[in-house]
Amino acid sequence: METVSTNTAHGGVQGVYRHASKETGTEMTFSVFVPPHADGAKLPVVWYLSGLTCTHANVTEKGEYRRICAELGLIFVAPDTSPRGEGVPDDAEGAYDFGLGAGFYVDATQAPFAKNYRMWSYVTEELPALVAAEFPAVMARQSILGHSMGGHGALTIGLTHPDRYKAVSAFAPIVAPGQVPWGHKALPLYLGDDRAAWRKHDAVALIEDGARVKDLLVDQGEADNFLAEQLKPELLEKACADAGIALTLRRQPGYDHSYYFISSFMEDHLRWHAERLG
Amino acid sequence: METVSTNTAHGGVQGVYRHASKETGTEMTFSVFVPPHADGAKLPVVWYLSGLTCTHANVTEKGEYRRICAELGLIFVAPDTSPRGEGVPDDAEGAYDFGLGAGFYVDATQAPFAKNYRMWSYVTEELPALVAAEFPAVMARQSILGHSMGGHGALTIGLTHPDRYKAVSAFAPIVAPGQVPWGHKALPLYLGDDRAAWRKHDAVALIEDGARVKDLLVDQGEADNFLAEQLKPELLEKACADAGIALTLRRQPGYDHSYYFISSFMEDHLRWHAERLG
Repeated sequence: METVSTNTAHGGVQGVYRHASKETGTEMTFSVFVPPHADGAKLPVVWYLSGLTCTHANVTEKGEYRRICAELGLIFVAPDTSPRGEGVPDDAEGAYDFGLGAGFYVDATQAPFAKNYRMWSYVTEELPALVAAEFPAVMARQSILGHSMGGHGALTIGLTHPDRYKAVSAFAPIVAPGQVPWGHKALPLYLGDDRAAWRKHDAVALIEDGARVKDLLVDQGEADNFLAEQLKPELLEKACADAGIALTLRRQPGYDHSYYFISSFMEDHLRWHAERLG
Repeated sequence: METVSTNTAHGGVQGVYRHASKETGTEMTFSVFVPPHADGAKLPVVWYLSGLTCTHANVTEKGEYRRICAELGLIFVAPDTSPRGEGVPDDAEGAYDFGLGAGFYVDATQAPFAKNYRMWSYVTEELPALVAAEFPAVMARQSILGHSMGGHGALTIGLTHPDRYKAVSAFAPIVAPGQVPWGHKALPLYLGDDRAAWRKHDAVALIEDGARVKDLLVDQGEADNFLAEQLKPELLEKACADAGIALTLRRQPGYDHSYYFISSFMEDHLRWHAERLG
């Protein structure tokens, strides 16, 4: 692991790091905030998965999480959203919603994407092992949240590993990629046409198929341009109601899809996570 | 005034606006955060002046001021750092420390800069008049802060207009441009070789020449790369001690010159301003 940069912030250290990923076959960059802590102390880890077009940098610069993580004693990790670099296949037209910056947190099975696009295994296995080795982290106390495509990632990963992630929340998540245009484009290209494979990467389908967590927190801006066509929180609301999952869905008047929205409610999410991380 | 964008954030509105400036002869872009407030209420205004290379966007995205301004009921205005656009003269070699992004908050008197580089009058007269006309602002309750070159701007403007600005503070300011390389480059190009003209744009010289404010708050990172050569807070410390100005100079171990530093202490500054804004 190579250190790209470290900056003192809110009494802790905001770092950016790079490593050669076996999963993606590329160099991957990620950020970690380690709050102030006693020598030798180990801290819980909050995973933040970013949305389409983002790298680790967006939330690192605009997320306003450091003050609260410093107060609550949380390590905050922000991975990239896809493999990048020489030879990594991208969207045929370079569109923003597939390929680079749009890994959708799946292990692709389809050529030419299967070789590099292994963001599921990267985020759930390889990067946690690296974080456990390099930072003062208690891996028995992890939680996960994300935004938009990263909200999709947080929900699907949290629902698949309910014992591993003690809290799961999202900002404006894609709750049912199998039912919306973003997913209709990405899922066949990454996973093929078999809809059974899609269902493992669709929060609503996972819940319909029996996945359970105790509770979920979702914030959704009512002025979000993607709300009606791509996000459809009502589908998650119905699935959770049917399954007995305690979903707190907060529709926030006036808020859009941007980091102005995320940073406004980051504190609420991190406090909710801290309660569940114990 | 044209609205470039508005986003709901922390219960208020973060806007970016553009207007044709008479002072600079260019279009100027600036940001304004208006916190949540009762209909018809008018609020105090905090001016934030940015450093070299910045536009309004840096602090708007990375400054972490909205939560606190929302709590305290403060309007937060971030101007650009220079005129920009077709025909605006720049540094001869395109360097970062003069010309575009480096207006030093002076009214230039030297060709070819005198026509557009009128950031002193822009920030102290033209933009306040626009803010007073377009936003729910009480112009009798203004304060000013800034970072680096913008800290220089905040100190010199605050010292020159002690009745107008009820609080003056800075992050890592250039306290004595007349004694450091950044000023030795910029001041002659903007103001000519007459050092008397420089002294009106040098906080330490202004204090030596009799300018007074009751108190000042300055945070300075001890790991700031520019500390020894360009910033020299000890010069401000001595001038304030000699003049009887109550300077609170906090040397912050580990902190550098970045927005990770600024955002860590923004809350302290805004609370200090709010106390003095009444």
